[in-house]
Amino acid sequence: MDFTPSARAQELTEAVSGFIAEHIAPIEHEYHQEVAQLRAGGGDPWIPLPIVAELRSRARAAGLWNLFLPAGHERDYAERYGTCGGTGLSNVDYAPVAETMGRSFLAPYVFNSNAPDTGNAEVLLKYGSTEQQARWLDPLLAGEIRSAFCMTEPGVASSDATNMELSAVVDGDEVVLNGRKWWSTGVGHPDCQILLVMGVTAPEADRHRRHSMVLVPVATPGVKVERLLDTMGFQDEPYGHGEVSFTDVRVPVENIIAGPGRAFEIAQGRLGPGRVHHCMRLIGLAEHALELACRRGLERTAFGKPLASLGGNRERIAQARIAIDSARLLVLHAAWKLDRGGALHALSEVSQIKVAVPNMAQQVIDFAIQLHGGAGLSSDFPLAGAWTAARAVRLADGPDEVHLGMVARVELGKYGASR
Amino acid sequence: MDFTPSARAQELTEAVSGFIAEHIAPIEHEYHQEVAQLRAGGGDPWIPLPIVAELRSRARAAGLWNLFLPAGHERDYAERYGTCGGTGLSNVDYAPVAETMGRSFLAPYVFNSNAPDTGNAEVLLKYGSTEQQARWLDPLLAGEIRSAFCMTEPGVASSDATNMELSAVVDGDEVVLNGRKWWSTGVGHPDCQILLVMGVTAPEADRHRRHSMVLVPVATPGVKVERLLDTMGFQDEPYGHGEVSFTDVRVPVENIIAGPGRAFEIAQGRLGPGRVHHCMRLIGLAEHALELACRRGLERTAFGKPLASLGGNRERIAQARIAIDSARLLVLHAAWKLDRGGALHALSEVSQIKVAVPNMAQQVIDFAIQLHGGAGLSSDFPLAGAWTAARAVRLADGPDEVHLGMVARVELGKYGASR
Amino acid sequence: MDFTPSARAQELTEAVSGFIAEHIAPIEHEYHQEVAQLRAGGGDPWIPLPIVAELRSRARAAGLWNLFLPAGHERDYAERYGTCGGTGLSNVDYAPVAETMGRSFLAPYVFNSNAPDTGNAEVLLKYGSTEQQARWLDPLLAGEIRSAFCMTEPGVASSDATNMELSAVVDGDEVVLNGRKWWSTGVGHPDCQILLVMGVTAPEADRHRRHSMVLVPVATPGVKVERLLDTMGFQDEPYGHGEVSFTDVRVPVENIIAGPGRAFEIAQGRLGPGRVHHCMRLIGLAEHALELACRRGLERTAFGKPLASLGGNRERIAQARIAIDSARLLVLHAAWKLDRGGALHALSEVSQIKVAVPNMAQQVIDFAIQLHGGAGLSSDFPLAGAWTAARAVRLADGPDEVHLGMVARVELGKYGASR
Amino acid sequence: MDFTPSARAQELTEAVSGFIAEHIAPIEHEYHQEVAQLRAGGGDPWIPLPIVAELRSRARAAGLWNLFLPAGHERDYAERYGTCGGTGLSNVDYAPVAETMGRSFLAPYVFNSNAPDTGNAEVLLKYGSTEQQARWLDPLLAGEIRSAFCMTEPGVASSDATNMELSAVVDGDEVVLNGRKWWSTGVGHPDCQILLVMGVTAPEADRHRRHSMVLVPVATPGVKVERLLDTMGFQDEPYGHGEVSFTDVRVPVENIIAGPGRAFEIAQGRLGPGRVHHCMRLIGLAEHALELACRRGLERTAFGKPLASLGGNRERIAQARIAIDSARLLVLHAAWKLDRGGALHALSEVSQIKVAVPNMAQQVIDFAIQLHGGAGLSSDFPLAGAWTAARAVRLADGPDEVHLGMVARVELGKYGASR
Repeated sequence: MDFTPSARAQELTEAVSGFIAEHIAPIEHEYHQEVAQLRAGGGDPWIPLPIVAELRSRARAAGLWNLFLPAGHERDYAERYGTCGGTGLSNVDYAPVAETMGRSFLAPYVFNSNAPDTGNAEVLLKYGSTEQQARWLDPLLAGEIRSAFCMTEPGVASSDATNMELSAVVDGDEVVLNGRKWWSTGVGHPDCQILLVMGVTAPEADRHRRHSMVLVPVATPGVKVERLLDTMGFQDEPYGHGEVSFTDVRVPVENIIAGPGRAFEIAQGRLGPGRVHHCMRLIGLAEHALELACRRGLERTAFGKPLASLGGNRERIAQARIAIDSARLLVLHAAWKLDRGGALHALSEVSQIKVAVPNMAQQVIDFAIQLHGGAGLSSDFPLAGAWTAARAVRLADGPDEVHLGMVARVELGKYGASR
Repeated sequence: MDFTPSARAQELTEAVSGFIAEHIAPIEHEYHQEVAQLRAGGGDPWIPLPIVAELRSRARAAGLWNLFLPAGHERDYAERYGTCGGTGLSNVDYAPVAETMGRSFLAPYVFNSNAPDTGNAEVLLKYGSTEQQARWLDPLLAGEIRSAFCMTEPGVASSDATNMELSAVVDGDEVVLNGRKWWSTGVGHPDCQILLVMGVTAPEADRHRRHSMVLVPVATPGVKVERLLDTMGFQDEPYGHGEVSFTDVRVPVENIIAGPGRAFEIAQGRLGPGRVHHCMRLIGLAEHALELACRRGLERTAFGKPLASLGGNRERIAQARIAIDSARLLVLHAAWKLDRGGALHALSEVSQIKVAVPNMAQQVIDFAIQLHGGAGLSSDFPLAGAWTAARAVRLADGPDEVHLGMVARVELGKYGASR
Repeated sequence: MDFTPSARAQELTEAVSGFIAEHIAPIEHEYHQEVAQLRAGGGDPWIPLPIVAELRSRARAAGLWNLFLPAGHERDYAERYGTCGGTGLSNVDYAPVAETMGRSFLAPYVFNSNAPDTGNAEVLLKYGSTEQQARWLDPLLAGEIRSAFCMTEPGVASSDATNMELSAVVDGDEVVLNGRKWWSTGVGHPDCQILLVMGVTAPEADRHRRHSMVLVPVATPGVKVERLLDTMGFQDEPYGHGEVSFTDVRVPVENIIAGPGRAFEIAQGRLGPGRVHHCMRLIGLAEHALELACRRGLERTAFGKPLASLGGNRERIAQARIAIDSARLLVLHAAWKLDRGGALHALSEVSQIKVAVPNMAQQVIDFAIQLHGGAGLSSDFPLAGAWTAARAVRLADGPDEVHLGMVARVELGKYGASR
Repeated sequence: MDFTPSARAQELTEAVSGFIAEHIAPIEHEYHQEVAQLRAGGGDPWIPLPIVAELRSRARAAGLWNLFLPAGHERDYAERYGTCGGTGLSNVDYAPVAETMGRSFLAPYVFNSNAPDTGNAEVLLKYGSTEQQARWLDPLLAGEIRSAFCMTEPGVASSDATNMELSAVVDGDEVVLNGRKWWSTGVGHPDCQILLVMGVTAPEADRHRRHSMVLVPVATPGVKVERLLDTMGFQDEPYGHGEVSFTDVRVPVENIIAGPGRAFEIAQGRLGPGRVHHCMRLIGLAEHALELACRRGLERTAFGKPLASLGGNRERIAQARIAIDSARLLVLHAAWKLDRGGALHALSEVSQIKVAVPNMAQQVIDFAIQLHGGAGLSSDFPLAGAWTAARAVRLADGPDEVHLGMVARVELGKYGASR
């Protein structure tokens, strides 16, 4: 059980950390204020601020680009993109890199390593045809376009995949989509050009062979972004979470990734590492919240003492440290299992962190909010947004309850329980 | 220990409940959507929608107006306002009325019974001079103007009142204010005309005699609403939470309520019932969240069962019921103690509910969100806003930690501890 | 919702409190030490110490006897037993009396008001024939004999009554019992003479009509106390918890209380108030633990401060106060519902307290233990025993999970769920 | 961060596991029943049963002996004891060995690797003179004698070492002890011959130089085992936890380990690894409890389902798995830090696990008890004892609160706080 990151990963972690400290941290608060003013003042917060493009071009120039790209693929990204093609990090290696990016809201996008584009890129890398890769993967990795993943539906309990209703029927050399998706993150971004849409192709087939994953350009007739949803009041501009309707949407049958009936398999493969990445970033977010709490707790004074030393605050700081360290180790353990045996080898471990980490982060951030008083709830600090990010992960990519069910199934399976 | 509401309170509760069901509930979701569209579409969400004025006039016509006005005051509101003058409910009587209003975000304002105007009106009622009452209390109760309460400051830990920095210096027949306040709820409303501002008049005096409570018209030169704060992304239009600066603000010395040095006493008196009202409303909010959770849990199906019957959901529904009922009883108990002996008789009890109720509500609402999936985080349901309301009360009017300190002090005092 | 105890109940509460302070508290620690020495030193801790008989006779003389006897029965206990026949307290009236007794381990027995005899007496009072009452109820109320209740079985999950295996077959004018029970509290006591045994008489009948409740004298051939169980290391001498086997045990068919097939109904009726009594006593136990914690916290010093003021201890004291007060109010509420409408009217309420109260007590006592350091775990303080008592109630008379299920069923039933 | 145990450690873990499965597990339940019968039946449970000596001799013959002995000491135990001298495992290496032993109550003693003898042996190994080692360490390692550690005192809050009252005054070539200790584990064992007693030698010295650690043979005049304490009703025969008085006890001044004034340093060094060992064993205990819960949950049925599938039980099983795995990783992390930099390098990490692990174990075991129903509280299963063991560690070697204080101090120190 060796969680030591490689020398390359350590270098990258330091480089990312340095880049954030030098280029992102100094402008992040101002960035959020500017977006807030656009929102409040009748401007358009959905047009990315120029500073972001600038940061992205600096990051790319520094070779800090597509850091999420996994090891073990034949395509030579180094050749194609120079140092920007990622360096093929294992999950254990990516952990400290992702944690470092997770301390900042802007960083993952600046390094072209943000969800859902990361997961979508991995799908195309692993399952995409050469044509699909040329048309969608290359511009994604080049940072020229953005993508979204359309799986959850508003009308059913999406935690049970068999509830899915959007149809993706093969009709000659086309596939026809009808239905509605929501929580399609990223569709609000002006560069979002391609959707990965999961739909039902063969309702009578085995429940793991019913669905297809279809590449649907946003501009296809019949695709309509009905609205952009908020999360606890946050719109998350300029990415956004869309509700998207599909009405007689027709795309060539070649747009089905890996052919009809493979969507379940693809989604599982996509969600595994995606969940680990979410958790890695949340560790960074929780660390950042604890740091803010400690600093605030030492700076401000009440009843003759620094806040940190009042009542149970020191105990809560200690409990937060214990919770973060435990959670990080659990994430590293899951990453290590993934690296050694793949997703099927780590079903319980991935579900474990998917439950443990956002709950931990939610709690640590809530404490940090409390220690900041009213300021903690406002946008003067990144804590309210951080809490919302952690809270949302308790539902995104499977709610806590589904993941607990998976952990219990594996556990009881040790003693012979069939399900 | 008799928590039975009077016949009059029961009638009022039913009338309020009926009014909400008939007039408010059917339009509330649409109302929030309309405000959201104004916000997103470049409109001005700070101008109250006409429907609200209409609802208020209907409520007033129905005699459901100023319901918070406490018993035991000599002024004859019935004479002055007809049935709209409130009916002088005890705290135990007001509990079910306030709980019923608390189920809806709009209701308290519709019935002219919303914070902070309720607390401000009570201050004027109890401590205001005849002139102050004529100028500010009467239009407040008539619903013609709105008010704000300016106590918390951005630069210090406001949980310790001795940290307060805004100065309110008597200079001849004027009082001069300099400093900065924030979380001044209601200053965003176009009708907000009067601020109750707490400042330091005699820094060397005993710590309970240092502060004055000054009536400052919003239009006074030197008063500037610097910005409106958000709470977890919510601006709470059209009320808002302001940061307000005071630069050489001069008002007549008669604007000091009850004379210089009385602010601490006034604030204590104001915050006691205010905290109880907050808690009563939160009970209603938690009930509403549990109802939504039960309904959703029975309507939606996954893995062949209604969501309510999956995993630990039934246990969580039961725990929520237990938590709400316990909290309501605790609130009634505090109300009953207040009625029998006043605020000083119920120091521990008020602090107990100030801790217990918002924490309970936060937890129940969080569960309701989880059971709704992504929808629970969005503005399609009132749950995200409800959570934020509950969370904010853990800080407003004294953070949990300060109230726990009070409860412990009373408890240890039974065994001879001096502090 | 009026929880005010009657004047008679207040008098009794004070009398009980005074009796405990004067007669029981001064000897209770010594009593436990003496039993412990008997146990350790090879003596027989199952023979009650003479002091207990003496205390009982003083309590009876003081009219503090059979205090649990409910209101509303035609039999004139006052006539039969003088002042010792109980005074027919309502549940709300009994609450403070039982809470006061619950502060002490010895008190309930001293006042002839301890489980399981209380519940067994109620069964005989309500369902027993005149002959059964004369033979068993009168000596029970006179304190001449003791009884046990045999329901739980070792071989099955007894939380589901349909799992019950002990057979009680009617054979002519006899009923024949075969099977095994455990956790039969009180069978270790030398005065225990009668068992109320629940068995299956009609396996094919409706599941609420299958079982009979049979009066089985301990001395009947075929009855064997196989062993006495411990709870967390405690034997609870001289009452004990027995495992009892029944091998071809024959008693007259008239020993079936209320006739064959009525046991389910009887058990439900017995367990309702029994659960409330358990909860009332646990409130007293938790109060006692908090008092000990406060006293210890003020007496002992570390790092220059009383323990109570270190770290989060004051917050924990406050949380304990909140938890106890909430729980007490919830118990009073359930008692009040029972008084107004009977057990069927209060199904959810009784299940609510059966979950909430022992969990609360367990937590408060655990904190008190922690504050006492090692002493808290030892028998120098009643805390280890108190924790065990609270913990056991989370299983006795239905585990938490079954009661949560009942609360959820009632809650979801409001929205039309059938089960 | 490499937690991989060495090949030697893996072999030992398997050997220990195999030995337990073959020799200990089959007799453990019967062993406890036999001790219980001695206790109940007037026998003497303080005389170790012959089976234990037999198991110990088999373990020694198998080379599974003194497994706790740390790496890096010059003395050649292999030479002196053959394969029984331990193999010098690092902390990371010892973790899986200790966890495996921790699943059984008997195992640590069988392998001569049980507290407090392990810690006492380490003290003598590291600080003892050649004479002290010859006289006490050799027979300890040979398993011929047992020892106890006397630090905690009944009269003061021992969490603050400056409260210690027992005096150890140097008088010529003797040291004279007067005072009282308790929770001296192991003094009940008939083979216990030597006590390590911490006392005050120089009350005016710096608080880290005041105390001396004195070797006091049990047979010294003035030493009296006043009584044996119980923990939650358990006496833990034949080891026991003693209260010991010291009245004018005189031993040669050479019996002070490492000379006067070094006790604080010695105690710190002793307690660091001791705490880690406790935690390692508790991981094993929690694993054992979870295994029992899963098995019981699958075997027993209620309401038509295995218990494991009722209500929230699967979620609780999953949460237990997450909690155990997190805790184990945290222990490995602390062990790894200890191995790399010693105790001073791992102050926060050791305190973290000292809080996290027993609390985790207490919760997992409590759940296992609940799933077993009444059986879980009885001695039919090792769960009640396991819970008590975990609970006791929340106080032994420093209460939770002191360790949380240490973690907070290190955390706040990162931001410049001095204490």
